[in-house]
Amino acid sequence: MWSCGVNFPNLARNMVKAKKFVLVKHFVGEPKESDLELVEEELPPLKDKEFLCEAEYLSVDPYMRPYTARYPTGVTMVGSQIAKNTSYFGFLEICDPKPGEVVVVSGAAGAIGSHVGQIAQIKGCKVIGFAGSDDKVKWLVDELKFDAAFNYETTDVTKALKQAAPNGVDCYFDNVGGTLSSAIISCMNERGRISVCGSISSYNADIKNMPSAPIVQLAVVSKQLKMEGFLTYRWLDRWNEGIMQNLQWIKEGKLVYRETVTEGFENMTKAFIGMLRGENTGKAIVKA
Amino acid sequence: MWSCGVNFPNLARNMVKAKKFVLVKHFVGEPKESDLELVEEELPPLKDKEFLCEAEYLSVDPYMRPYTARYPTGVTMVGSQIAKNTSYFGFLEICDPKPGEVVVVSGAAGAIGSHVGQIAQIKGCKVIGFAGSDDKVKWLVDELKFDAAFNYETTDVTKALKQAAPNGVDCYFDNVGGTLSSAIISCMNERGRISVCGSISSYNADIKNMPSAPIVQLAVVSKQLKMEGFLTYRWLDRWNEGIMQNLQWIKEGKLVYRETVTEGFENMTKAFIGMLRGENTGKAIVKA
Repeated sequence: MWSCGVNFPNLARNMVKAKKFVLVKHFVGEPKESDLELVEEELPPLKDKEFLCEAEYLSVDPYMRPYTARYPTGVTMVGSQIAKNTSYFGFLEICDPKPGEVVVVSGAAGAIGSHVGQIAQIKGCKVIGFAGSDDKVKWLVDELKFDAAFNYETTDVTKALKQAAPNGVDCYFDNVGGTLSSAIISCMNERGRISVCGSISSYNADIKNMPSAPIVQLAVVSKQLKMEGFLTYRWLDRWNEGIMQNLQWIKEGKLVYRETVTEGFENMTKAFIGMLRGENTGKAIVKA
Repeated sequence: MWSCGVNFPNLARNMVKAKKFVLVKHFVGEPKESDLELVEEELPPLKDKEFLCEAEYLSVDPYMRPYTARYPTGVTMVGSQIAKNTSYFGFLEICDPKPGEVVVVSGAAGAIGSHVGQIAQIKGCKVIGFAGSDDKVKWLVDELKFDAAFNYETTDVTKALKQAAPNGVDCYFDNVGGTLSSAIISCMNERGRISVCGSISSYNADIKNMPSAPIVQLAVVSKQLKMEGFLTYRWLDRWNEGIMQNLQWIKEGKLVYRETVTEGFENMTKAFIGMLRGENTGKAIVKA
């Protein structure tokens, strides 16, 4: 939830004030600041065995955009304050990457994309990233040591892949969907695997009137591709395993993280809109 | 191959004349009769342990359209004279249908679609078909006893599925791709399975400039769908198993076949063009 405590002056009397963002209007196209309203509320007294947490950092993530369509206006804006483990299983279980294979990641400079690209490197794959700005591309190549990275806004995707992966693409981790994905999928090898983690290119679209992109079925059948979508709760019972492995890799210096931090809980909506525009590199978070 | 013997007058001298269709121009858009040329050739003498077969019936199938792009002009037109077993494994292995689930089939009145729909019924599923004419729809409902069938040319697909499958679609066997498939995929249930057998809607398109359709990735990720393409040779080692099971079902009266027969080997190209236009109901074959 997009909520945080604002003062805890009188815990003895069990009176706590908190701030939260409420959805006052369903998003149409790109979210507007006026779609969410910052309200203050008095929390009910704590019951026996309940405890209160103060949010220090909050997360803004792409999934929040489509999720709101499931709820009525008036709800507290959906969100989470916990660490994600989204990429680990979604990539390894669905793409099943083998050493020496070519892995393409879209939205590669985002929180999940940059994580998946590094896991692919650890697994001995060649990694190619697509991102939305030259700065992000530079970060992917210079710091994360991707084998290649391209700004999809200014690149002929098919040509770039023919050069960077002349023997074709084996795995594709898709955060984006749409036209970019159609081009990448057309370059895949026989029995390639596609893990669909997000479809950020369509999150601001009308759900009843999806934007169009070149159709993928001809490639799917002629190359016998497998495409599968996932939501992180599928591996809920294995989260600990993923977290421990990631921590191990961080300790070994094999995983690098980057965060784009927005200061102030009141700027949650701004950070959310900016993240959907691709203004973040790495994980977009808000310091409350 | 599109070839057949024309006379066998002098087998004693090992001289045999045969006719074949040669690709003289790669198809652009819809195939034209002038893209293929009927030529007569003298077959080389039979060697020891070789034998000669005379084609009585030949098959025209959608896959022949995209396959030709892989070969140079001058080749004998690709084809097969043997029984297919395409649907059995592609449906059961990828869609993994459970009794009581809802199965949608596109291209449902074609050779493969009508077969898959009946296998789904045998497996205890509710079956909904989409086809390209009212006559085909009538055949699917009246004779094959599909639970529902619609002419996709004149139907609001999403509305029709909401009525016929109010609890959503679990499996989709896709012969068609494109806009129809995007609409069906948007109606699928959590963890639905899509088996992509063909993409006939795009076979006449320029392979470097695929037509567009509403993007599928948002549905794939939010419903955690699995989409997989297949070519029939994947289960080459199990063909016999599929053929025996189908024969058993035919004997038990559980599988009904229908054929659209064109007379005369010289009419192969006409039959091929007509099949791509959807003029056949059931399997399109040519009597040599």
